[in-house]
Amino acid sequence: MQELPVLAIDVGGTKISAAIISNRGQIITKEYYLTQADEGPQPVINRILSAIDGIFSLGNIDSSQLAGISMAAAGIIDSNRGRITFSPNLPGWCDVPLRDIVKEKYLIDTFLLNDASAAALGEHNLGAGKGVDDLILLTVGTGIGGGIIIDGKLYFGSCGSAGEIGHMTIDVNGPMCSCGNDGCLEALASGTAIAREAITRINQGERSALTEIVDGKIEDITAEKVEMAARRGDSLAYEVIFKAANYLGVGMANLVNIFNPEMIIIGGGVANMGDLLLDPARQVVKERAFSLPGEAVRIVPAQLGNDAGLLGAAVFAFQQKLVK
Amino acid sequence: MQELPVLAIDVGGTKISAAIISNRGQIITKEYYLTQADEGPQPVINRILSAIDGIFSLGNIDSSQLAGISMAAAGIIDSNRGRITFSPNLPGWCDVPLRDIVKEKYLIDTFLLNDASAAALGEHNLGAGKGVDDLILLTVGTGIGGGIIIDGKLYFGSCGSAGEIGHMTIDVNGPMCSCGNDGCLEALASGTAIAREAITRINQGERSALTEIVDGKIEDITAEKVEMAARRGDSLAYEVIFKAANYLGVGMANLVNIFNPEMIIIGGGVANMGDLLLDPARQVVKERAFSLPGEAVRIVPAQLGNDAGLLGAAVFAFQQKLVK
Repeated sequence: MQELPVLAIDVGGTKISAAIISNRGQIITKEYYLTQADEGPQPVINRILSAIDGIFSLGNIDSSQLAGISMAAAGIIDSNRGRITFSPNLPGWCDVPLRDIVKEKYLIDTFLLNDASAAALGEHNLGAGKGVDDLILLTVGTGIGGGIIIDGKLYFGSCGSAGEIGHMTIDVNGPMCSCGNDGCLEALASGTAIAREAITRINQGERSALTEIVDGKIEDITAEKVEMAARRGDSLAYEVIFKAANYLGVGMANLVNIFNPEMIIIGGGVANMGDLLLDPARQVVKERAFSLPGEAVRIVPAQLGNDAGLLGAAVFAFQQKLVK
Repeated sequence: MQELPVLAIDVGGTKISAAIISNRGQIITKEYYLTQADEGPQPVINRILSAIDGIFSLGNIDSSQLAGISMAAAGIIDSNRGRITFSPNLPGWCDVPLRDIVKEKYLIDTFLLNDASAAALGEHNLGAGKGVDDLILLTVGTGIGGGIIIDGKLYFGSCGSAGEIGHMTIDVNGPMCSCGNDGCLEALASGTAIAREAITRINQGERSALTEIVDGKIEDITAEKVEMAARRGDSLAYEVIFKAANYLGVGMANLVNIFNPEMIIIGGGVANMGDLLLDPARQVVKERAFSLPGEAVRIVPAQLGNDAGLLGAAVFAFQQKLVK
């Protein structure tokens, strides 16, 4: 049994989280830093290294007291080579060898994996998916990420980039996605899509309580505010969420037909809408998926909240150390 | 090492194939029978049993000289319970316990799996996917089936129905599919979709050499005839195939983003079109998938032809016997 803790880092488009996590999955200490992703790779890398230094001094520890450093990051990760090859959330990152940069500085076992994959591993080991061998996690937030657990293990694919479920085309003639394609699940059911749809409809002259909620600054509408309006009975807001939930259901029905998973876990900021989002999505899965897998799958909310990526990154490091 | 051969059966919508297959994957004897699926389950079950009896007498063997009977069938298979729960190609089949019907008659280890899953296993062990750990097989014919190999093993999902890739929605506003949904990959890129598109365009008054090829009987147009016309330089036929290939590419780009597979193998009757279909489809994958997994994947034709299902069913039986 590996007794030393792991230093886990979650590099997102908005913030960098860093934590010391015990081998029982307990967060011993945790800090946040702003990513300031628009400054490009080098300043962000410097902030990641500062975050690690910060955690070292905060916890009064050094590399020798750790089992490893494990990083989860938004983007297409080449996990064989420990590189972020591309990231819609980290502008300018192209084939950045983040794992080795950290490893060479701290001279300790270092791991790098996709943030949604890490979250899937976290939920599988410590959250909603405990004991479930075949599951898919979707993180529905600004974008839509995915992680796949098969036979109790994180599925990486041949280079380590598996799980980009948000970039599954479900409406080939649909709106353009951040990835450049049209009609990805992310372009139709993410928080960004929900906000965009509400803004478009209001700009076209439709009436909604949202206008008042944002004091007339329509561009300030977010998915969270759409939810707020829907809960107050605003029909436009409700319709916008219902439409996104329908697309989410179409995407999940695809996954159910392809994977026949035991469980789909929905995490990410938009998942905080709970059954307002999940109930119509579940209904679409029931209607569209084949009945055998459609009846077998449980569609449940995530349990670990914002810590899923950190916890999953730690779990990954512990698993890799065990294999060694 | 299992020395006895397996009796493999492939139950399709058109024909039932039966073969004795050695543990080296050699077909010792093989027979075909018409399915006559429109007569419903019981007559087809009787024909399956007759096929088994026929092979027994043809090979002059009985159950005691076999490692088992292994059946591949078109449909949504509950492999835990050995049942065909539903099949678009076998009208009226609803939760039919085919495995146990055969097992109880012949008192021998009996297996049942989806035909495209069997084909994936066949290609993985004996065909285009030898030595490839993560691959997806698509059978593009009347419909579109799928089989998934992960970590060198057939992936079944929680009930055994995984791999229904043909029923992935890629155009939520697209044409209706045999499954009842709109815009499945199968409704846009199968042989049926190719024939339907050509028929529709000609019925709308467009000119094509196809009209002559079918002697004016437009409803006789098949994907094979569209290919023939395209190869003779008919532009409508070429456009129809190009459009289907594009949709196939969209579906494969989804799979590449989700699975990051080493290989996608394309089998089934429509795959006989070769590069006429595959080249434009590969181009779409290149354009739409993320570059890391998009460049990693090899998209190749199947090698085992119509025998893939039979061979894969046999491989499955040998693998199951080894596990025992």
